[in-house]
Amino acid sequence: MTDFTAHLDTLRSLDAAGMHGEDFFLTWEKSHDELVATFTVADALRALREANISSRIFDSGLAVSLFRDNSTRTRFSFASACNLLGLAVQDLDEGKSQIAHGETVRETANMVSFMADVIGIRDDMFIGKGNAYMREVSQALKEGFEDGNLEQRPNLVNLQCDIDHPTQAMADMNHIIHTFGGIENLKGKRIAMSWAYSPSYGKPLSVPQGIIGLMTRFGMEVVLAHPEGYEVMPGVEEVARKNAAASGGSFVKTGFMAEAFEGADIVYPKSWAPFRAMERRTELYGEGDRAGIDALEKELLAENAQHRDWECTEELMASTTGGKALYMHCLPADISGVSCAQGEVASSVFDRYRVPLYKEASHKPYIIAAMIFLSKMADPSAKLAELIARDARRFSN
Amino acid sequence: MTDFTAHLDTLRSLDAAGMHGEDFFLTWEKSHDELVATFTVADALRALREANISSRIFDSGLAVSLFRDNSTRTRFSFASACNLLGLAVQDLDEGKSQIAHGETVRETANMVSFMADVIGIRDDMFIGKGNAYMREVSQALKEGFEDGNLEQRPNLVNLQCDIDHPTQAMADMNHIIHTFGGIENLKGKRIAMSWAYSPSYGKPLSVPQGIIGLMTRFGMEVVLAHPEGYEVMPGVEEVARKNAAASGGSFVKTGFMAEAFEGADIVYPKSWAPFRAMERRTELYGEGDRAGIDALEKELLAENAQHRDWECTEELMASTTGGKALYMHCLPADISGVSCAQGEVASSVFDRYRVPLYKEASHKPYIIAAMIFLSKMADPSAKLAELIARDARRFSN
Amino acid sequence: MTDFTAHLDTLRSLDAAGMHGEDFFLTWEKSHDELVATFTVADALRALREANISSRIFDSGLAVSLFRDNSTRTRFSFASACNLLGLAVQDLDEGKSQIAHGETVRETANMVSFMADVIGIRDDMFIGKGNAYMREVSQALKEGFEDGNLEQRPNLVNLQCDIDHPTQAMADMNHIIHTFGGIENLKGKRIAMSWAYSPSYGKPLSVPQGIIGLMTRFGMEVVLAHPEGYEVMPGVEEVARKNAAASGGSFVKTGFMAEAFEGADIVYPKSWAPFRAMERRTELYGEGDRAGIDALEKELLAENAQHRDWECTEELMASTTGGKALYMHCLPADISGVSCAQGEVASSVFDRYRVPLYKEASHKPYIIAAMIFLSKMADPSAKLAELIARDARRFSN
Repeated sequence: MTDFTAHLDTLRSLDAAGMHGEDFFLTWEKSHDELVATFTVADALRALREANISSRIFDSGLAVSLFRDNSTRTRFSFASACNLLGLAVQDLDEGKSQIAHGETVRETANMVSFMADVIGIRDDMFIGKGNAYMREVSQALKEGFEDGNLEQRPNLVNLQCDIDHPTQAMADMNHIIHTFGGIENLKGKRIAMSWAYSPSYGKPLSVPQGIIGLMTRFGMEVVLAHPEGYEVMPGVEEVARKNAAASGGSFVKTGFMAEAFEGADIVYPKSWAPFRAMERRTELYGEGDRAGIDALEKELLAENAQHRDWECTEELMASTTGGKALYMHCLPADISGVSCAQGEVASSVFDRYRVPLYKEASHKPYIIAAMIFLSKMADPSAKLAELIARDARRFSN
Repeated sequence: MTDFTAHLDTLRSLDAAGMHGEDFFLTWEKSHDELVATFTVADALRALREANISSRIFDSGLAVSLFRDNSTRTRFSFASACNLLGLAVQDLDEGKSQIAHGETVRETANMVSFMADVIGIRDDMFIGKGNAYMREVSQALKEGFEDGNLEQRPNLVNLQCDIDHPTQAMADMNHIIHTFGGIENLKGKRIAMSWAYSPSYGKPLSVPQGIIGLMTRFGMEVVLAHPEGYEVMPGVEEVARKNAAASGGSFVKTGFMAEAFEGADIVYPKSWAPFRAMERRTELYGEGDRAGIDALEKELLAENAQHRDWECTEELMASTTGGKALYMHCLPADISGVSCAQGEVASSVFDRYRVPLYKEASHKPYIIAAMIFLSKMADPSAKLAELIARDARRFSN
Repeated sequence: MTDFTAHLDTLRSLDAAGMHGEDFFLTWEKSHDELVATFTVADALRALREANISSRIFDSGLAVSLFRDNSTRTRFSFASACNLLGLAVQDLDEGKSQIAHGETVRETANMVSFMADVIGIRDDMFIGKGNAYMREVSQALKEGFEDGNLEQRPNLVNLQCDIDHPTQAMADMNHIIHTFGGIENLKGKRIAMSWAYSPSYGKPLSVPQGIIGLMTRFGMEVVLAHPEGYEVMPGVEEVARKNAAASGGSFVKTGFMAEAFEGADIVYPKSWAPFRAMERRTELYGEGDRAGIDALEKELLAENAQHRDWECTEELMASTTGGKALYMHCLPADISGVSCAQGEVASSVFDRYRVPLYKEASHKPYIIAAMIFLSKMADPSAKLAELIARDARRFSN
């Protein structure tokens, strides 16, 4: 039988009470204990599933999902997490909805939530919009509950916004923790969050921002590398700086990929759009300026093409610690010679890390389930202990 | 602990046996006892959920949903109701289906229903079509069950047709019952079901028809107000007249919004399309006459624009009983200065009633669950008593 | 109480161990015992449901569905089967997914399967593609499980590919078994799998191929009839020939519908596309040759129109054994004078067989559930016995 003692002991030692009844917007709004509790519950839920023990805490209940951008990984991770806990996912497909022009966010939020325990939202397309939208939904649901219209307060999980991608960053972090054998081993480890070339443009900034906002919490040396013009949101850089100072780590920036990779223990090379350009795009969309958007796109693609040499090559990998840095990516990656002529990563590098990459992704459903679990449970360690003792089969084989 | 005695006593005093195994098409096909049983079960299911007691009566089973028109509120209400009882919703998306040109309704109905316990349909676009379609589906399912092809007879819930919108009208009525403290207090209460201006045209008639067809059952004074040309279906007016006579209430019509509001206890100002025009549109669609449809639309919008003064203003609200009539709407409303320049209701009126409006909408999932419950249970009060005694947690916190 | 003894005895006498942990691609990859086990479990699961006994074996778990072609019957059958066993269906909608251009099948397969117990795929559009795609997915999932990225190996159910339509053929076969009172009565029975005219073109070959590949397993006389040019895949004909030889039946071909029908006990008249033309279409799609595809379509429709006389008429039916052959179709059929001017079958023939046709279709959800059950259970008869003994209500009425 699996030994859950370590998970339970860790959880009991942490103060995660602040997560009860709350949403998960940004990792830097959560305390160190709350983050560690999330990793711990994620691991415990995974251990339960591996031991074929049900972690159903809902007999019925809805999880509303709203994806304002395409999604496979996060969609299935959310569906998996909700199903694991006993919730049925009901997708709010704005295309099929009778959401009137001008209908308030408050109204829609309430209308779909009469029996919703959880709401997961992806809204990452426009700078200044996604996170703000989630806050508005959350506020509406809080009021709807207080007004007695909703029987329960649905807790919101940010499935990627313009600022952070917490389910991704937390899954990535748990992958790092597992790879290096524990949080206590991360102090001084060097991670290169680097821009990389992709023939497409306009990828969200929430991944690099999420990474620098989270990885600076644990005493790591976080290096952010990108060509000039590819800055991320200044506010998030500020968060990273403060985190690093508080955790005894560091946060530095460089304009050279090679500098970031040199001696790195972990590398995360990934394309993203320049923040200023994305801001500009948001304005152009707001103005309905199609020609302006097209012109901006051309400009960005041309700009992008200047940096084809930002590729995670074998040569760069050789410069990392022992030539064996952990290569990470949120997937799908633009693999040179596979998914495009030239992209973010050499195919030989990607291939060598395929199994760890899939492992990295495998944490996400459990991280989401842990976020829900901690938002719902007044005493999460007691509930976990109860699930272990209940010992109900997930799969009655 | 919640006291369910009142609900159980009420339910035991009613004869709702006729609902067992049957569909819910139109409120006026149901007896007074059956309507009251529906409100009672809805309230009981809500009380169970508030007490965190599971009302799962299905261990597995499908609920088929078919939306031939966009929907948010009703879609989520149906999903919530089915989930509450333990059914998984499977959407019949006609766009993704291999429903051959010329495939019979009978065939499709059977093909999706081998394990379906419930089927919910919205089909409200064309006069003379939606309800007829539902009847055809229902007949096919009845035969499919009798022929032994279906293991169970799926019961149909009308989620809005061309004639009635029973889940809306019943939720609205339950809101009224709760607001006025019981069915026994409704006698003599005056409700104004009034047309109101919206910049769009062609909204279904099923809401006003559902309201006059149901609210006349309880001794209320029902006033239907609309500009000339905005008549509802004559058959439904006839139903309202008969209902009023039988229940000791009244049903009157007026061409003036102010007259309807004067002294009203409840107001329901809402845009709808003229019945004759909708009939004409159905014919034009049948003939595939695109030009004719465009011409009709222009004509209707011009006609519509004549009645911009049909707005639920503060002035009109002041003329109601104590200036405090209950303002109702099925949502989303066209709010002047919010969702459109000029619409159905002044924003100050809407804002003042926002909480009651959301409460109004919150009844729908429970009403739908009650309809399903009563169609499935031979002895609904015994089953409710059993659920209370079983005392299984919906949410194991 | 239902007597399940016969089902359990049959199942105990069969060796279906090879299905445990495996996929279901093609019926001719399964042993005779495995096919009979599938029919037996399907019947047992149906008997359980009829006796209102739950056959839930999953407390939670996902079933991923991927439909690369429209589907109603199979979609609902898959949803029903999964729901019956306790799995929630999560659709992989490639349109809404962030599946990058060039993303590998291996990656997508892993990303959606972290908590997937089953994956059902329909991919029947292009010769040489569908089955190959399924094999690739299966291989990826096997590796993902072995690499420790997936907690379980999701078993794949072929919901129709370019080669076989096993859930259809197995449901059809079970209908035949029930109609003729048992597998032991099929020896020497004559089945005419005949091409029939439809105004559309390009229908998949997987149904006729599935029928000749399966029905030749049980000593039946299988006749394949089609106009010149409408050959099916040579490899499947070879399978049919070998099956017939091994089972003591026969497999013959004819160019005349009347010859196939003469003395038939079962007739299955259905349109399909010529294999060579479908191969050509696959190439043209590969080359992106739109003009070539349009030209091919015109050519095929013209060719098709030559064979309007391939219709299942009353006259042809009269020539079958006792004039009473069992008429079969996977539905929807092209019915002359109903769904098209002239089609596969006379409306009087179709109408007479409507109830058996729906019965035929009703087997599919149970066949799929049986395929899943047998892939998941190390000892299926013991588990069935346990479900019977557990006697949990599916519907607590």
